[in-house]
Parts: sequence; structure tokens; C-alpha cells
Amino acid sequence: MARLSLNTATTKHLTLPQAAAAAADAGLSSIGVWRDRVQEVGADVAAKVVADHGLRVSSLCRGGFLTTADDDAARVALDDNRLAIREAATLGTHELVLVVGGLPAASGPGGPALPYPAGTPAADGPDDPARDVVATRRRVADRIAELAPYAAAHGVRLVLEPLHPVFAADRAVISTLGQALDLAAPFDPDVVGVVVDTYHVWWDPDLQRQIARAGAEGRLAGYQVCDWVLPLAADPLLSRGHVGDGYVDFATITRWVRDAGYTGDVEVEIFHEEVWAAPPERTLGTMAERHVRYVLPHL
Amino acid sequence: MARLSLNTATTKHLTLPQAAAAAADAGLSSIGVWRDRVQEVGADVAAKVVADHGLRVSSLCRGGFLTTADDDAARVALDDNRLAIREAATLGTHELVLVVGGLPAASGPGGPALPYPAGTPAADGPDDPARDVVATRRRVADRIAELAPYAAAHGVRLVLEPLHPVFAADRAVISTLGQALDLAAPFDPDVVGVVVDTYHVWWDPDLQRQIARAGAEGRLAGYQVCDWVLPLAADPLLSRGHVGDGYVDFATITRWVRDAGYTGDVEVEIFHEEVWAAPPERTLGTMAERHVRYVLPHL
Repeated sequence: MARLSLNTATTKHLTLPQAAAAAADAGLSSIGVWRDRVQEVGADVAAKVVADHGLRVSSLCRGGFLTTADDDAARVALDDNRLAIREAATLGTHELVLVVGGLPAASGPGGPALPYPAGTPAADGPDDPARDVVATRRRVADRIAELAPYAAAHGVRLVLEPLHPVFAADRAVISTLGQALDLAAPFDPDVVGVVVDTYHVWWDPDLQRQIARAGAEGRLAGYQVCDWVLPLAADPLLSRGHVGDGYVDFATITRWVRDAGYTGDVEVEIFHEEVWAAPPERTLGTMAERHVRYVLPHL
Repeated sequence: MARLSLNTATTKHLTLPQAAAAAADAGLSSIGVWRDRVQEVGADVAAKVVADHGLRVSSLCRGGFLTTADDDAARVALDDNRLAIREAATLGTHELVLVVGGLPAASGPGGPALPYPAGTPAADGPDDPARDVVATRRRVADRIAELAPYAAAHGVRLVLEPLHPVFAADRAVISTLGQALDLAAPFDPDVVGVVVDTYHVWWDPDLQRQIARAGAEGRLAGYQVCDWVLPLAADPLLSRGHVGDGYVDFATITRWVRDAGYTGDVEVEIFHEEVWAAPPERTLGTMAERHVRYVLPHL
């Protein structure tokens, strides 16, 4: 269990102290923490809670949502990301996961709502800010550049997470690992990295090559696992299943991650109503069992 | 309206004669037809119905579902695709759209069901056929090779359709235009092509380059439009909206398609319960209005 980590999203209803206790009881050595559970107790106390349970923090989830086209909203978002960087430093984790945000109309303040009412032809052109995914990605690049020195000064890495394209409109205009690596390329690998989350990238025909590239560039900052189950939940965000319950080829992807030189933690991050409703000890038990069966032999 | 085409999926509840009449009444010059509506009347009668309304067939939808790992099921699938090729030839369309199929466990006969019951560790390895997307894609390539000479002999092009990655497990292991072009590369561009469907590919960071490549290679066989609306329908297959109702940047993508040299039809293919429930003349009216507003100025 040395490399298995509980991401607190998997035990959504537990406070940080409860989640840390559950992870320690299950014999894990690390925990990936979401900011809501950290902020409930404060970052200093959170750091102490985790250490008192003999755990490390594998990552802090999450910063990001940097796509707004509105200057005031952008300042607020950048400030919040600076706070997340400080929280990561306090927690003693090097890895701050960023979900960059979707098209501004769908994911953030400061954008127009779609669909437009009839009779607003001015916004139908190629420069319509509500739909311009190319310009939105450029803003992400600019804002990563703005945050990078601050992250470096705090010893924290900005970890870009490509999200499944089903979330491209409302959560992340970064959809592939290759795209995340292109965005990261101008920066020191110790300051901007990427994370592989199986739910988001399992389908990518270029995945093997991009995982190898991430390893070669020294940017492979995390490996998060959960499964693609069918039928999808009505909200695809909540459709992530336990490893082994769906269609992801963990054997193959885990080998690609291993062959890329990854030696870090394997975080289990599941958003699923049934998993959240289960007793935490059962969730942790299933996590450990599936890890041994599907992931560990190939790690 | 010279290049606007009604795909019969948009008017799901109309027979082919009804759909052809609706398209002609709306002033369109072509119609994209699904095989179920063709087979109801037979391909010969279907061809006559379309011609009698002064229409062309822009494409036949769809062949494919070629991913099974079972030899008998594969023979059945290949035979059905040969029938589709003959139907396309009878209808006088050059373009037979193929949705290639998903992982065999999720999309076709002959595969095991997932998740596995406890205690079947033999299937957990990297060669698990139910999850091996790499091997599944290889089978698609092999079966395209098997069908290509038959298609060529009938003057029909096999048009590979990349589907949104939300359908990678259950409908199509081809998820990007680049991947479709790689699969098409060994074949004559007049025998294996690709189609751009905005719903499926709008999110792709490599889209501009791959559309240009498709044009340069002479493989751009179709342009299908509909919008990405939020929130998604419970079944993402039925979440396609009218052009302009969602987040797709039609101005930009249409320009890329135009710049790639595409001079063919623009098919509106919408799967959506509300659109299906609407009176056909309203659906056709909305199609035409949105075409003029969002697509035509950039075509």
C-alpha cells in the first residue's frame, strides 16, 4: 500500500481528520486533499492532522478556473490560485493540481450566457468570446505564466490536468495530455507539470506516446485512477467508478506510466453517489483490493 | 440553401418519403439518409423517392460496428457493411459514413460483459480483450482493409467518423480526426475518407491542422453540424442541439472546413428528443435560419 493514496473526493462526506484516519487505518501512506476540506480546518491544522496520522500529502486539489474573459474576475481567480499555492506549501506537497476552466460562458463569471437571445448577430462571428476555445486556451497560457514564478518561489508545482472532452465546454479547455505538455513546455518541469487521470485520458489514441513524453520531460507529477463505467451517470462528473468496474485498461496504462519512470503515488479519486454513500471502510477496502488486483502488478 | 442537407436522423419520426418531401419543401437540394428509413422502402424505391423530390443523397448513414473480437460476429458485421455499400451505390451517393464501434464488451456481440464477477483474475492483464482499445483499433484497420476493395468496386467511399470520446467505450474507438486520417492513410482518398461532425470534434486542440490535412489529402467527405448544448442530456447521444444553441464555434470551424477546400454539403444531424417532438416544418425552418446565421457566411 506504500504508493496508494486516498483522494478526499472519494470519501466526500468525511472531514479531513476523518479521511486521514480512514487512510491511516487502511495502511496507506499518503492522502490527496481537496481545498474545501483543508479550508474547513485551516491549512496549518490540516498539515498537522495529516502528519499526526503518519501520512504525506500526495497532492492538493485544486486550483485553476483561469479562463474568464473579464479582468476583475481574472484577478480574483489568480488571487485564489496564489492562495492555493500557499496552502500546498503549508501542507508540504509539491503538487497543486489545476483544472483550468472551460469556455467562460459555461464555467466562470464574467461571460455571457448561451444560447443568445434572438437578434444578437454581433456575437455570431469567429471572435465570439463565449465560443472561442482558441482564445480561451491562450488566456490559460498567459495566466499559467503569471502564476509560475509565485509557485516556484513557494516550491510548488502547477500540475495541469487534462479533462475528458465531455468537460471541454464547462470545466477544462485542456483535453489531452499532449496539449497539457505543450502548455507546460515553456516552464521548468519542476514548476509546471501534468497529471494522468485515467478517467480523463484512457480513450486518447496518443496516450502512450504522451505519457512517455511527460516522463522524459520530468513533468509526470501524478497518477490518478478511477474507471469509466457505463451507462454514464446523468452528470458525467459523477460517473467515475472503482478501478475494475468499467472499461479502462489499467494494466496497459499503468505500464506506460511505470515505463515513463513514474515512482510517485497512485491516487484514487472517485466522484460517484454510490461510492460516497458507502461506509468509508468499505470504500477503502475496495480501493486496496482493486489496487492489488489491477494496478500494483503493473506498477 | 444549395449546400444545406437534412440528415434523416434530425426528423427521426418521418419516413423517407416524408423527410424527402420536407427537405424539398424547405428548398434544400440534398438529404442524408439513415439505413433504417432506406430499408423500410428498399434502396431502389428510396433512390426513386429522393430523385422524384429533386434531391441528391449527400451521404448514407451508417455502416461500421466492426470491432467485435468474435469471428462469426465479424463475418455478420462485414456482410452488413457490404450491404450498406450496395445500398449507397443504389442511392447514388459516394459517401458511406462508418461509426466503427466501441470496445467489444460495450458495443457489440461476442464480447464479455463488464464488470467481471469477482474471481476472474485471468482477464485482468494487459491482454484483456474487453478493455484492450489498442487491439480493438487494430481490428478496425484490418476490417477497413477487407471492405475497401468492395467499396471501390461499387464507387463508394468508406467515410470514417471520429466520435466524441464520450462514446469511445460503446460506439467508436476512433475519437479524433487525426486518428481517422491515420487509419485512412493506406487507402486511396477516393475509397476511404473522413467526415467532420462538429459535435464530435469541436473540442480537439488539433482540429484546425487535421481539417487542413483532410483537405490536402482529398479525404474530406462530409461536414455535419449540430451544437454541443449544456447541460448534457442523460444520454449524451441525444444531447445534440440546433446550430447556435450551444458552445460550438461554427464560424471558426466552418472557415477551417472552407479553407480545406471543402465544397460539399452541410448536413444537419441532430439527435434530441425535443427536436424530434417538434413539427418537421419548424425543425426545417430553424435549420435554415441557423444555417444562414452561423454557417453560410463562413462557408
